[in-house]
Amino acid sequence: MLTNDELAKWDRESFFHPSTHLGQFARGEAPQRIVTGGSGCHIHDRDGNKLLDGFAGLYCVNVGYGRQEIAEAIATQARELAYYHSYAGHGTEAAITLAKMVMDRAPEGMARVYFGLSGSDANETNIKLIWYYNNILNRPKKKKIISRWRGYHGSGLITGSMTGLELFHKKFDLPLEQVIHTEAPYYFRRPDAAMSEADFVGHCVEKLEALIAEHGADTIAAFIGEPVLGTGGIVPPPAGYWPAIQEVLDRHDILLIADEVVTGFGRLGTMFGSDHYGMKPDLITSAKGLTSAYAPLSASIVGQRMWDVLARGTDENGVMGHGWTYSAHPIGAAAGVANLKLIDSLGLVENAGTVGAYLNQRMTAAVGDHAHVGEVRGEGMLCAVELMADRDARRFFDPSEGKGAKVVAAMLKRGVIARAMPQGDILGFAPPLCLTRDEADQIVDVTAEAVAEVLG
Amino acid sequence: MLTNDELAKWDRESFFHPSTHLGQFARGEAPQRIVTGGSGCHIHDRDGNKLLDGFAGLYCVNVGYGRQEIAEAIATQARELAYYHSYAGHGTEAAITLAKMVMDRAPEGMARVYFGLSGSDANETNIKLIWYYNNILNRPKKKKIISRWRGYHGSGLITGSMTGLELFHKKFDLPLEQVIHTEAPYYFRRPDAAMSEADFVGHCVEKLEALIAEHGADTIAAFIGEPVLGTGGIVPPPAGYWPAIQEVLDRHDILLIADEVVTGFGRLGTMFGSDHYGMKPDLITSAKGLTSAYAPLSASIVGQRMWDVLARGTDENGVMGHGWTYSAHPIGAAAGVANLKLIDSLGLVENAGTVGAYLNQRMTAAVGDHAHVGEVRGEGMLCAVELMADRDARRFFDPSEGKGAKVVAAMLKRGVIARAMPQGDILGFAPPLCLTRDEADQIVDVTAEAVAEVLG
Repeated sequence: MLTNDELAKWDRESFFHPSTHLGQFARGEAPQRIVTGGSGCHIHDRDGNKLLDGFAGLYCVNVGYGRQEIAEAIATQARELAYYHSYAGHGTEAAITLAKMVMDRAPEGMARVYFGLSGSDANETNIKLIWYYNNILNRPKKKKIISRWRGYHGSGLITGSMTGLELFHKKFDLPLEQVIHTEAPYYFRRPDAAMSEADFVGHCVEKLEALIAEHGADTIAAFIGEPVLGTGGIVPPPAGYWPAIQEVLDRHDILLIADEVVTGFGRLGTMFGSDHYGMKPDLITSAKGLTSAYAPLSASIVGQRMWDVLARGTDENGVMGHGWTYSAHPIGAAAGVANLKLIDSLGLVENAGTVGAYLNQRMTAAVGDHAHVGEVRGEGMLCAVELMADRDARRFFDPSEGKGAKVVAAMLKRGVIARAMPQGDILGFAPPLCLTRDEADQIVDVTAEAVAEVLG
Repeated sequence: MLTNDELAKWDRESFFHPSTHLGQFARGEAPQRIVTGGSGCHIHDRDGNKLLDGFAGLYCVNVGYGRQEIAEAIATQARELAYYHSYAGHGTEAAITLAKMVMDRAPEGMARVYFGLSGSDANETNIKLIWYYNNILNRPKKKKIISRWRGYHGSGLITGSMTGLELFHKKFDLPLEQVIHTEAPYYFRRPDAAMSEADFVGHCVEKLEALIAEHGADTIAAFIGEPVLGTGGIVPPPAGYWPAIQEVLDRHDILLIADEVVTGFGRLGTMFGSDHYGMKPDLITSAKGLTSAYAPLSASIVGQRMWDVLARGTDENGVMGHGWTYSAHPIGAAAGVANLKLIDSLGLVENAGTVGAYLNQRMTAAVGDHAHVGEVRGEGMLCAVELMADRDARRFFDPSEGKGAKVVAAMLKRGVIARAMPQGDILGFAPPLCLTRDEADQIVDVTAEAVAEVLG
């Protein structure tokens, strides 16, 4: 296929791509890839390439590509009723069924599910609900949100503020003042190499306590965190982190939002990361895994203690003025129902646990001792390889060298997609949950070759 | 069909509906409707009702229900490639084609289109782009957004702040300080009945000038407005309003966002409301009409003067850290391509103009002289009937009487859906653009009957 046909030209001239270097892309200096299809863990592009997708899109195509069961559910819904709104008690069989299925799978203590479209909009909903909640409880000052550095919670103004990564703040005037940040639970980058994991958890707790004391618990509404840091570097928490944080939050009457956009519906080998780590969230954010990205849909799962206050709020104030035209969109809901059924019938939660563990073991064995690999880490079907200039001196590469991006490019030449995480030289892996051991082997082998090519 | 079956129970127990009275819905005191299908301008529900939808969902199902051309486009895309991301120069044929089609239809001076999911997220993107733009231009203070009272621009924190309606602010601590509001261009509710339309435009301009003077033009980045106020009451602007506003904005170097979520792609009988009123926007927000709601998709159409600065921004700062996982989702893009083709092939832009004018004329003739109708107004396929306690004394009903909601309920009994707009007793009509004259007649006849039943 020609690379300079009309489609390529239209793309350069018309399409504003997200997270892209706009100037380079417009001038034809940055690469373009037109994806045409996919099957299982592979995608195909217009130029005849077949690539093993080690990142499942953006860690979202959890059931893998080309699942005709979901395609047919979408097709049937589109033919029968592509859309009706869900305002004022309206609904569709797909949306109601999915609500029931989500609640059946949710951790204990959850009461209702609100459907939006993206992880960002679900977190936006969450903040609105939290502010509403504290207004109904007559605590008008209790509104600030604590997030962690390196957390990822979206790309809007408030959600991008909760995100704790420089790329998403720079030139956007973020974070806004409603959001404050505390220590990332990133043991590998602990301030003092001599700290044990338990010491480091103590350090995170101290930092959190100090932040709460500085602002006053009566001004802090909620704490948001991903069970495992995602875009911030794919970092599982140190042992004991979540129970220790939970204790602080409970003591100060601060709500917990578990951002499970990445971890929800199986990625850690458990249905939710909250179950995996014993978190007791008041709100759970979900998106990607809810539909495996076959159609846009997000969920804010609301715990009982919040729900009771929200319902009382409408008794006192009437209809709650919050909603998106496409809340609980029938196409997304139909995709969600088919997707959750497929996750069950294919045993993908279990596969994420077993093949994910295999991927992590093989990756550790293959590159863990490399002179420029500081750490291989992961949990379930998540894995990261952190590169370092000098592992003994704990010295990182200069970001301008782009070592992570170079390794990822060397992998792509070999037919495997990994992600250079945006802050640090970190190779990220989040394959579809249906990954086979053979595919895991291929990812590991290609990673080792690419690391050797770029870093010796 | 039973009304107390499992689906109804799951709905009450699991599903957090948007814009709903949560307490009443959970207790079974507020109505529930499970929609099962639709065709043309009608929807069907599980209880065997067939309703003429005079509001096209939430003014979004512009091509009407049950269009198999769009359903098949969605089905084909779902089977071939339901999802791949569009970050870092990735794309799909559907997304690129739609980008080209949007640019071909956009008003003059537009440069690129960014795809999101909802009108709210498109406006969120717009604000981020505007802040980025002024940071690249080294105007860090020029960040405030002027919106109008009664504008509707979304339901997030910033977008809900731009919305100028009490329902969307109450108990949510909105508007945030980044957004300031000016006079609604609502001639019928002008402060002094003696004002001519031209006087009132002068009044709106004075209010805007005073607000700019109060804050300083160097602190104000943009002005956002719907060509025709939508959720705020379906209010076309007074003659000459947009050119007068445009002149003020140009003089103070304030960007214009045309929020065309309702008006984009044909509702006013022109492809865009900006063309209709001679607005010269720097950004155009689109959503509903882009896909006729068959799948979630929004667009931020970026003008050339902004695009040049944004592209320069990435040359200076690298990749722009903004994106949603589901930006330019292939299912939405495929729906958009099929939808825009259908709008053309069915001549729906023209039909919106001609049948819309017919609907407005018939409505005026039928209820315009009623003692409790203050005004019948509209433009294209938009129409509103504003109810009043006393039209000569210009006295409105007490909102607690819920007169608008009662008329809408009386219409629903007669098989026609209208919307009681949330602020004021205003009956709103925004039917699919494929409305026939017979269907317009039915809407008008039922409105007249319901007005007579409720208001005598």
